[in-house]
Amino acid sequence: QLRQGGFVDNSLMYRQIFVVRSYEVGPDRLMSIREIFSLFQETALNHVQLLGIAGDGFGATRAMNRLGLIWVVTKMKVEVNRYPVWPEVVEIDTWVAHAGKNGMQRDWIMRSYQTDEVLARATSTWCMMDGVTRRLSKIPDEVRAEIVPCFMDDYPSSFREDEESPRITKLDNTTAENRRSHLKSTTADLDMNQHVNNLKYINWVLDSVPVEHMEKHVLASISLEYRRECHSTDVVESLTNSKMDIQGNDSDPSRPCEYVHLLRKQDSSNQEILRGMTKWRRRSDPLNC
Amino acid sequence: QLRQGGFVDNSLMYRQIFVVRSYEVGPDRLMSIREIFSLFQETALNHVQLLGIAGDGFGATRAMNRLGLIWVVTKMKVEVNRYPVWPEVVEIDTWVAHAGKNGMQRDWIMRSYQTDEVLARATSTWCMMDGVTRRLSKIPDEVRAEIVPCFMDDYPSSFREDEESPRITKLDNTTAENRRSHLKSTTADLDMNQHVNNLKYINWVLDSVPVEHMEKHVLASISLEYRRECHSTDVVESLTNSKMDIQGNDSDPSRPCEYVHLLRKQDSSNQEILRGMTKWRRRSDPLNC
Repeated sequence: QLRQGGFVDNSLMYRQIFVVRSYEVGPDRLMSIREIFSLFQETALNHVQLLGIAGDGFGATRAMNRLGLIWVVTKMKVEVNRYPVWPEVVEIDTWVAHAGKNGMQRDWIMRSYQTDEVLARATSTWCMMDGVTRRLSKIPDEVRAEIVPCFMDDYPSSFREDEESPRITKLDNTTAENRRSHLKSTTADLDMNQHVNNLKYINWVLDSVPVEHMEKHVLASISLEYRRECHSTDVVESLTNSKMDIQGNDSDPSRPCEYVHLLRKQDSSNQEILRGMTKWRRRSDPLNC
Repeated sequence: QLRQGGFVDNSLMYRQIFVVRSYEVGPDRLMSIREIFSLFQETALNHVQLLGIAGDGFGATRAMNRLGLIWVVTKMKVEVNRYPVWPEVVEIDTWVAHAGKNGMQRDWIMRSYQTDEVLARATSTWCMMDGVTRRLSKIPDEVRAEIVPCFMDDYPSSFREDEESPRITKLDNTTAENRRSHLKSTTADLDMNQHVNNLKYINWVLDSVPVEHMEKHVLASISLEYRRECHSTDVVESLTNSKMDIQGNDSDPSRPCEYVHLLRKQDSSNQEILRGMTKWRRRSDPLNC
C-alpha cells in the first residue's frame, strides 16, 4: 500500500517513482543537483532493503553489521541532461555490479515518468571499511555470499566506457583562482555513519565556484573522487580552478566549460578530502530549460 | 496511481502519507525540525492543488495570480512530541480557516501512520502581499470567493487557545548572550517567491543556540513571528538569549528550557526580520527517543 518501489521485470533492478516536491526546487522551480543526489541515495537504500539483505546500518548488509563493516563511496559521477521541474514525476532505476575484486559499482538512471526522457545518469564505486579502525577492508566471503547474487554484471553501466571520466588531477593549491575557507559542518550535516554527508561536500565544492559563473551556467555533470574521511570537527577549504585548456570559452558558447575542485583540511596537514570536476552548460542552451 | 494525498472523509481536510527518507534524518536517525517544516509546506501546496483553486504561483490561487498577489506567512508555531525515525511512515493532515478579516490560518497534525500517535502539531497565519509593491493587501472579493469555501472554521485548531504562544518579546540586542553574524543566503536558499526560504530562517535561528545546549536537548517547539522580508542580498545576524525567568533550569531537569531569538539585518538599519521562541526537552527525557 505504501508504494515505495519494486523490482523491474523480475530482475534485480530497483525502480522507484518520486513526485518532485515544492521545497526541493529553487526559484527557477528546478530541482538542484543536491536533491538528485539525495533521491539516488534513497533508492540505493530502499533497493538493499528490498533485496532482503539489509542489516541495521546505512545500506549495510546483515553480515556487514556482524563484522562491523560499513560502505564508503570512493567515486561518484552524475550527469544531468535536464533538471526535473516542480511538480514533475520522475522514475529512478538503480542496480549494482562488481567493481574490481573488492568493490561494488552502483548505477542510476532518472527518467521523466511521463515521457521516458532520460533526465540524469549516475555511477558510483563503493568499498568496505571497518567502522572502528576506519581501514578499508576486502569483501569477506560472508558478505560476498550476500551481495554477489544481487549483482547485475551483464547489465550495461549507465555510462559507456568512453564517457567515463579520467582520473581527476590534483588542483595546484598555489594557483587556485577561487577559494572558500573556514568551512565547517554541523551535526545536521552528518549521516547515519557519522560522516559529513554527500550533500555538504557538494555544497562546499560549489561554494568556491564564482557566483557570476553560476548565474550564467547550469551544472551539466559533476565527478567526485573521495580521498579521505571528513569528520564534523574538521575545518575545510574549498578550491576551484577553471580548466586551463578551455579558458576563454566565453567566446564559444557551444563549448562546455569545466572546473576542477579540491576540498582539503584547513590545518597543518592540508590533507585532501575530495577531488572534483564539474562541467557546465550556458543557461541560454535550450537543454537547460 | 501516483498516490499523493486526498481529502479526509469527504471533508476539506487534506491528508498525505510520507515515508521518512534516509537523507532526511541525522546521525540519530531522527528527522529534524527542518524536514518537518518542509513536509508541512509540501502538504499545504498539494492541498491547494487538490482544492482546484491553484494558480501558477507558490500556493497562490488563480485570482491571486491575476491580481499579482502572493501569500506571506506572518506567524508559525510547530510543536514536536516525538521526531519521526527513519524509515517510519507518517500521515499529515492540514486544513485552513479564517484568521481575522484578512488572514488565513493553516494547521497541521503529523501522526505515526502505524499507531496514530500524534508526533507534531503546527499552526500558521498567512496574509496577502502585492508581488510588485511588496505591500500587504486585503483579501480582494475575487480571491475571497475562491478560498472561503475551503475554510473549515468549525474544525478545531491543532492548538487549544491556552496553548497558543503569547506575542514574542523583542530580544534586547545589548544583552544578547549568543550571536552569529555575517549570515548570508545563496540562490539555493530562495523559494519560488524569491524569498529566503523558511528552512534557512530556522537554520539561522538555531545557528546561534549554543552547541553544548543542543547536545543535551531536543527542540520541543518553535514559534516564529515574521516581521519583514529578507532578500538574498541581505546580511543577517542571529541573536539568542535564554529566558531570564527560567535560567538555572539545569538544576530541575523536568523543567523545559526556553530561548528567545531575533534575526535582524546586519546593516545600518538593523531591521528586525524575525522573532522566535524555542522550547527544549532534555535528551534523557524518554519522549525524545
